[in-house]
Amino acid sequence: MSFEAGSGLLTAWGESASLMRYLDDLFRSWAAAVGAVEYLFPPVISVRALDRAGFFASFPHFTTAVAPLRDVETAGRFVDRARRGPVDEVGRESLADARYLLAPAACYAIYDHFQGRQLEDDLRVTTLAPCFRREEAYEAASRQWAFWMREIVCIGRLGTVQSFLDGFRERLARTLQSAGFPFVVAAATDPFFDRSDPRLLMQRLGPVKDEIRYQGSLAIASVNFHRNFFGERFDIRDASGGPAFSGCVAFGLERWMTSLTREYGDDWKAYPPSLSIGPCRDFVM
Amino acid sequence: MSFEAGSGLLTAWGESASLMRYLDDLFRSWAAAVGAVEYLFPPVISVRALDRAGFFASFPHFTTAVAPLRDVETAGRFVDRARRGPVDEVGRESLADARYLLAPAACYAIYDHFQGRQLEDDLRVTTLAPCFRREEAYEAASRQWAFWMREIVCIGRLGTVQSFLDGFRERLARTLQSAGFPFVVAAATDPFFDRSDPRLLMQRLGPVKDEIRYQGSLAIASVNFHRNFFGERFDIRDASGGPAFSGCVAFGLERWMTSLTREYGDDWKAYPPSLSIGPCRDFVM
Repeated sequence: MSFEAGSGLLTAWGESASLMRYLDDLFRSWAAAVGAVEYLFPPVISVRALDRAGFFASFPHFTTAVAPLRDVETAGRFVDRARRGPVDEVGRESLADARYLLAPAACYAIYDHFQGRQLEDDLRVTTLAPCFRREEAYEAASRQWAFWMREIVCIGRLGTVQSFLDGFRERLARTLQSAGFPFVVAAATDPFFDRSDPRLLMQRLGPVKDEIRYQGSLAIASVNFHRNFFGERFDIRDASGGPAFSGCVAFGLERWMTSLTREYGDDWKAYPPSLSIGPCRDFVM
Repeated sequence: MSFEAGSGLLTAWGESASLMRYLDDLFRSWAAAVGAVEYLFPPVISVRALDRAGFFASFPHFTTAVAPLRDVETAGRFVDRARRGPVDEVGRESLADARYLLAPAACYAIYDHFQGRQLEDDLRVTTLAPCFRREEAYEAASRQWAFWMREIVCIGRLGTVQSFLDGFRERLARTLQSAGFPFVVAAATDPFFDRSDPRLLMQRLGPVKDEIRYQGSLAIASVNFHRNFFGERFDIRDASGGPAFSGCVAFGLERWMTSLTREYGDDWKAYPPSLSIGPCRDFVM
């Protein structure tokens, strides 16, 4: 592994790259155990979709925007400029307005995809995505500008979503306990919602985000209940016809790599049985 | 699958997503057969690195730049703006200058990673990356703004690189022939080099890019010889001490998905044996 602290960018190879792949295979096996369908979304999401999800009201500082050059004349000027000397930046005056962003979490693409749908059945969906969060400072494999997140999402009726989240919270804890992994489950507040939204108060009254924290501090997974926030924002209706409820379980791959390597080394073939990929022995929902 | 033609963005799920994963597993098995080490690079690359690779002199029109907001005050203004009404773009005046891009090919990150190195042994490296190319118009699974590319790269002495490319070209053709897949191998010109570089003339004299084309037109893979261009540009020296030679084999995942689905359907478990992942029976270099 190598890490550029200034930019928050990690490069993994060999054993580290294998471990990242293994971890995602493990999370996918947990997703498969609950019947989640895998989606592969584009690595960018529209500004409009993220705004609908409440991003600009909550996390605008995370913004990593994506923009092409303004026009072909501007592109032509870069040919000349590159001949005259090194190019180390593309000034904002050369860019078009940005209509896409690199998302700060994997699940936004899911709500956007199902926008305007009337669901006949409750949904379980999983996806892996490169995520981006601009921060003041970065740390290898724990706080990065770019990182990988696997999410497993349930959208539908309240009871289904609650059972999905309760089941996952319990099974995750049992799996890690049986591996002898040092962790705590802690309630967290996360401004998923517009700060003026009364649901933020509800979130504070009754926690809707539980984090699995390694050695008490590094959040390696979170279990999130969004109530019907995304159902309303994206006009997704559940079988009852009302705004769908949703919840997600999120795994940060680099953070799992850090903590599992510290506990068990980087040879995942020798990991405890509950962290191995089998016929879901230890992880049946 | 769904495709937004205006933006050139594809979403795959279920069988399509499984097929994409299967194809990458297949290409990785081919990479493993030649001893390539897997790398997982950040999904963005610095403007400086792509410039060093000759990008702005050759493909500036492909540019997809990545930029955060200018400053915290700008971020704060987005909170207010989001409360007043929908946000559907981030104007360039709100962006910082872009120091990173989304790369148009997977292998640039490799030369950047090995910049300044004196290689003791010839290298074989493989990586999968989301790639971005702005185009005038898009078509599902054949010409997209964002797409996935797996590359297998050899960097080192001239003879090693030539054997690597010759071996891959031959084995790829044999593999596809034995699957009864309709393809041709055709020489292509690709302005890898600065247009003022004499190597561009050499490229025209002796082809350095061969494409594997499905039904004669859709390039699903390419075998590229860069001479010592990247070795010079990134100051990578081979065992002899001179600028290293390099070559790569590139696979466009969406294009393979399109062509294989058309030929064999989407159940990869029923694909011809030469396209199945085994102990490299049909693909031993």
